[in-house]
Amino acid sequence: MINVGIIGVGRIGRVHGESIARFVRNARVKAVADPCLNEEAIQWAKAMGIAETYTDYRKILADADIEAVLICASTDQHTPLSIEALKAGKHVFCEKPIDHDVEKIKEVLTAVGESGKKYQVGFNRRFDHNFRALRQAVQSGKIGRQQIIRITSRDPEPPSLDYIKVSGGIFLDMTIHDFDMVRFLSGAEVTEVYAAGSVTVDPAIGEAGDIDTAVITMRLNNGATAVIDNCRAACYGYDQRAEVFGTGGAVEISNDTASNAVISNKDGVTAEKPMFFFLERYMMAYAAEIDAFIEAIVNDTPVEVDAHDGLAPVLIGLAAKKSAAEHRPVAIAEISAAYGL
Amino acid sequence: MINVGIIGVGRIGRVHGESIARFVRNARVKAVADPCLNEEAIQWAKAMGIAETYTDYRKILADADIEAVLICASTDQHTPLSIEALKAGKHVFCEKPIDHDVEKIKEVLTAVGESGKKYQVGFNRRFDHNFRALRQAVQSGKIGRQQIIRITSRDPEPPSLDYIKVSGGIFLDMTIHDFDMVRFLSGAEVTEVYAAGSVTVDPAIGEAGDIDTAVITMRLNNGATAVIDNCRAACYGYDQRAEVFGTGGAVEISNDTASNAVISNKDGVTAEKPMFFFLERYMMAYAAEIDAFIEAIVNDTPVEVDAHDGLAPVLIGLAAKKSAAEHRPVAIAEISAAYGL
Amino acid sequence: MINVGIIGVGRIGRVHGESIARFVRNARVKAVADPCLNEEAIQWAKAMGIAETYTDYRKILADADIEAVLICASTDQHTPLSIEALKAGKHVFCEKPIDHDVEKIKEVLTAVGESGKKYQVGFNRRFDHNFRALRQAVQSGKIGRQQIIRITSRDPEPPSLDYIKVSGGIFLDMTIHDFDMVRFLSGAEVTEVYAAGSVTVDPAIGEAGDIDTAVITMRLNNGATAVIDNCRAACYGYDQRAEVFGTGGAVEISNDTASNAVISNKDGVTAEKPMFFFLERYMMAYAAEIDAFIEAIVNDTPVEVDAHDGLAPVLIGLAAKKSAAEHRPVAIAEISAAYGL
Amino acid sequence: MINVGIIGVGRIGRVHGESIARFVRNARVKAVADPCLNEEAIQWAKAMGIAETYTDYRKILADADIEAVLICASTDQHTPLSIEALKAGKHVFCEKPIDHDVEKIKEVLTAVGESGKKYQVGFNRRFDHNFRALRQAVQSGKIGRQQIIRITSRDPEPPSLDYIKVSGGIFLDMTIHDFDMVRFLSGAEVTEVYAAGSVTVDPAIGEAGDIDTAVITMRLNNGATAVIDNCRAACYGYDQRAEVFGTGGAVEISNDTASNAVISNKDGVTAEKPMFFFLERYMMAYAAEIDAFIEAIVNDTPVEVDAHDGLAPVLIGLAAKKSAAEHRPVAIAEISAAYGL
Repeated sequence: MINVGIIGVGRIGRVHGESIARFVRNARVKAVADPCLNEEAIQWAKAMGIAETYTDYRKILADADIEAVLICASTDQHTPLSIEALKAGKHVFCEKPIDHDVEKIKEVLTAVGESGKKYQVGFNRRFDHNFRALRQAVQSGKIGRQQIIRITSRDPEPPSLDYIKVSGGIFLDMTIHDFDMVRFLSGAEVTEVYAAGSVTVDPAIGEAGDIDTAVITMRLNNGATAVIDNCRAACYGYDQRAEVFGTGGAVEISNDTASNAVISNKDGVTAEKPMFFFLERYMMAYAAEIDAFIEAIVNDTPVEVDAHDGLAPVLIGLAAKKSAAEHRPVAIAEISAAYGL
Repeated sequence: MINVGIIGVGRIGRVHGESIARFVRNARVKAVADPCLNEEAIQWAKAMGIAETYTDYRKILADADIEAVLICASTDQHTPLSIEALKAGKHVFCEKPIDHDVEKIKEVLTAVGESGKKYQVGFNRRFDHNFRALRQAVQSGKIGRQQIIRITSRDPEPPSLDYIKVSGGIFLDMTIHDFDMVRFLSGAEVTEVYAAGSVTVDPAIGEAGDIDTAVITMRLNNGATAVIDNCRAACYGYDQRAEVFGTGGAVEISNDTASNAVISNKDGVTAEKPMFFFLERYMMAYAAEIDAFIEAIVNDTPVEVDAHDGLAPVLIGLAAKKSAAEHRPVAIAEISAAYGL
Repeated sequence: MINVGIIGVGRIGRVHGESIARFVRNARVKAVADPCLNEEAIQWAKAMGIAETYTDYRKILADADIEAVLICASTDQHTPLSIEALKAGKHVFCEKPIDHDVEKIKEVLTAVGESGKKYQVGFNRRFDHNFRALRQAVQSGKIGRQQIIRITSRDPEPPSLDYIKVSGGIFLDMTIHDFDMVRFLSGAEVTEVYAAGSVTVDPAIGEAGDIDTAVITMRLNNGATAVIDNCRAACYGYDQRAEVFGTGGAVEISNDTASNAVISNKDGVTAEKPMFFFLERYMMAYAAEIDAFIEAIVNDTPVEVDAHDGLAPVLIGLAAKKSAAEHRPVAIAEISAAYGL
Repeated sequence: MINVGIIGVGRIGRVHGESIARFVRNARVKAVADPCLNEEAIQWAKAMGIAETYTDYRKILADADIEAVLICASTDQHTPLSIEALKAGKHVFCEKPIDHDVEKIKEVLTAVGESGKKYQVGFNRRFDHNFRALRQAVQSGKIGRQQIIRITSRDPEPPSLDYIKVSGGIFLDMTIHDFDMVRFLSGAEVTEVYAAGSVTVDPAIGEAGDIDTAVITMRLNNGATAVIDNCRAACYGYDQRAEVFGTGGAVEISNDTASNAVISNKDGVTAEKPMFFFLERYMMAYAAEIDAFIEAIVNDTPVEVDAHDGLAPVLIGLAAKKSAAEHRPVAIAEISAAYGL
């Protein structure tokens, strides 16, 4: 039984807390910490059976009974908290992205290497039943040699403009999940990116210096070409589809729905919309990623999404950003070289 | 090139005429006859390149160049026309049902036997791409030993009350196609029927002495059980589905649509309704059945739906009628015996 | 927070225990009892955080802190345990069926009435997301007046012959879920049953006096006709489909799968099989039914599946058994009358 | 009744001949011409009821009874035959592409303008039931303002290397249909192209100077972004899918199959593969395009795919070729300007 501390009990911190209570056999949450800890959060913790609630995360790091820490604070805190937790001898699960700044991620990589501890990054979609089935089909050889990878990833609604302004831009905030998915599904590395972005949802997003719609083409070092299409808004819900096409066939996944009821009437034959809310859609994936993290600690096996997996999609995202800005394909090596990688 | 005469150029007669012009390589329509031949019908024939148009069908029977006759007159004319055409040495394609009266069908069977000519009954659904694929899966052994056969067959709209009054009742008019389909899909014979009928569409149908909704259970001589559900009206279109379930798996077919476009919006994910009109839905099946009839003549091979196949579903239909009336399961043998079969 | 005791910690008892730990906010399991309590069961209870484990269920009934009891013992114990628990002042959740003997169910009904306690029967499928969506569509009026209800319910594998011999027969053991579903979906009562049974899976089942395949037709007091097809074995998995067809349209549900991945290759376009194991398929439904039971206690509202709902499908099952045996349709009133109901 | 002459009776010429015989009410083929006219072609013409067969196409152009000419010769003959036929006062249907050389297409445009005759280009997919339904949904406003257009277009098998060498390259030979489809579905013009090509099917295609796999991103003058993915080989058949996503929803089309039979067994739930052969897949679209051409003549209305529609995708194709060669996005204006357009 691994004792866990959660730093940051906003929305995602609570998701992980509830996942552990319900689905993670070998862990329990011993303490949570949040600088903005309020009565409502304390009540939540009590209801979850979590005895210790702090405003100061250092109390978690100082607790020798706590072996693993989940970092669910705001992105700018990911790097310092990661390094401090690793130095305190904790295994660390860090929400994505580690950081938007590659130099800081490099510091984390160093800290991970020095600590000998587990470090997992929160790319939850890798633990989703559909994406896993897709990857398994690819890895089983059923589709042969990969040729084309397609990902459609559209959010139901754009985040607030305030959020967008600090988000790092669509490529580092939203597409980063899809960049990770390209790597996960293909088992290969992206070598070049071409990003065509536009503002089709809300002009205010453009005025804030970001885009809300993008089609991103990538070349992979296994010879395949990948393409992602993104939009910050889809009126029918959270649209998460993917396909890998190869010499032996194609495998694709579609959206999950709340039920499979289909109504036939004079207006047509109508099924349910995709699930709207990402926490609902990926509830079991959130649980599975924490379970996998705990099992990696228990069995001393490698984590499934390590710090390098946290770095790679940031480099791709920066290349995409540069591609969109400079209106040309950008090699990942060009970005890596700039950071001495 | 087989010269064909069509007796009766109402709706179905014209369907066959156009099928031959478009799709039947080895036949051409030389003449049509209809007692109610009007100017519009003559114009239709002219447009189809059919030179000879008669009010008297005997001119077709007397034409030595005509080898095959399609009987598309009203049901009460099927038997006398069939017998007269066979005696005139013609191959005969007769619309379904041969007759509602078993004694008359027996006369046709005798005439067929004496003539040595081809005699095909118009169970068009046997030639539909979906039903054929289903049957092929069954016959290939892919689903193993048959256990349950399910057919859903619902019309988009009820026929007129005038038609219903002379239709012979739902079992002989509508379900007869499904009884034929049970035999076609299973390759087995029905031994017993239980029919639960009701009036759920229009009370006037009940007042006319018929029912408009039915669930019919059948035992087959291969050990399987079949069940048909029928309704005279389905607001979403012509509903024609079937499944055969066996020890090795199940095979099922669903409805055809005009296109496979699917719209996702805030109301749901909506596909097209099933095709509404039976002539549209089964257009290619109508063509294929005539083509198969002509090929049977050209190659002197057995027809795919012979006079016995015309008789069997009438016996099942009469058993269903009796079952619904007497509120008990009825053996086909009980009906057959009454007719000395 | 309702304290719960579980009597019987075989497979289903543990399912409920785990559901409560994971998903039921307002309940906790305080004690479990099982006459065959072994070390493995004690370890399971310990892992679930259940402190008290007994061989004698009376210790649960005697515990004033326990407000609700789940009866998960063998079927022959359902009635005496139900009555004893109600008399001890407990709310009772009883696995289905209450009993095969109508007289005993009547005793339970009396005890429920006298106790003023909640009594819920374990028809878990009523809490499944698909069946609920189907029912909601029916109740919303979207499909208009009901005409035909179809349920396909096929198990992946037959139970052991030993089980079949004490199961009460397919209608009381397997179809009973589907009889309940007909009532749940329609909101109406069955008035007559015709059951056509056969042995198509395993002759040994026939030798044991049971059947393994059935098509059951029912008339409902809302004018609709319902039909269930059952089989004890389906090589492709647990097949649970349903459709309600009415004057305004049809709504249907299909099977759930572990993922929606679809592979296209030279052999075809292949999706996953339906889930195989009923505990996996209905995991969330099991959780939801216990949650609903607890909420009915907390809020003092009627349970969603009461003792009458436990009785009704047994009467239908007995009518089906009689129908199959006597080869005729059987009115439910004929069965009810025999029991003075 | 329009008399038609067909120049070139290879595969596609015969497709059109048979379409006219079967499906085009207001036309008949009076003559065919082919420099390689052999006995087999003459027999085919005879079977189709086409009396006149020539080796010299000028006999068709000289026939005053022939109002319309279908040019089904090799691509290098399209331009001279088009111009000569227009000058002879014929309406012209010309197979795609008009030419690979923009200067020649310009000559055709001039000839069309001077002639006042109809000139339709053979982009058959515009007449396909699925693509038409998709476009109709877009034009109806159902999906709102367009944001992303996705087309997947994969051939079942690559053509011969000999063909590839003279094909003009994948963009002018294969993708040209998809470029046309982007224009058709969007009703907008492409302004810029970025093409990422690769050789993943057969190295010999690369050695022949072509590519066999491509992902092409386009910006449209309506603000939308379009993306096409192409491959010369898909082991599961001819893959033709498309989606238009907009502010009001998304509409997508999938592949047609020979039947909708689905088999469930221990290996999964398997539907049929997409149709393999393009002539089979688009049979009705080929008929519809000729019918539309004839109707445009009969009613003196504009053709649905005019000479400008023949030019535009060639310009896009040349831009794609340049993009792939120069590894940068290329504006269509850059190509147009080079040709003084």
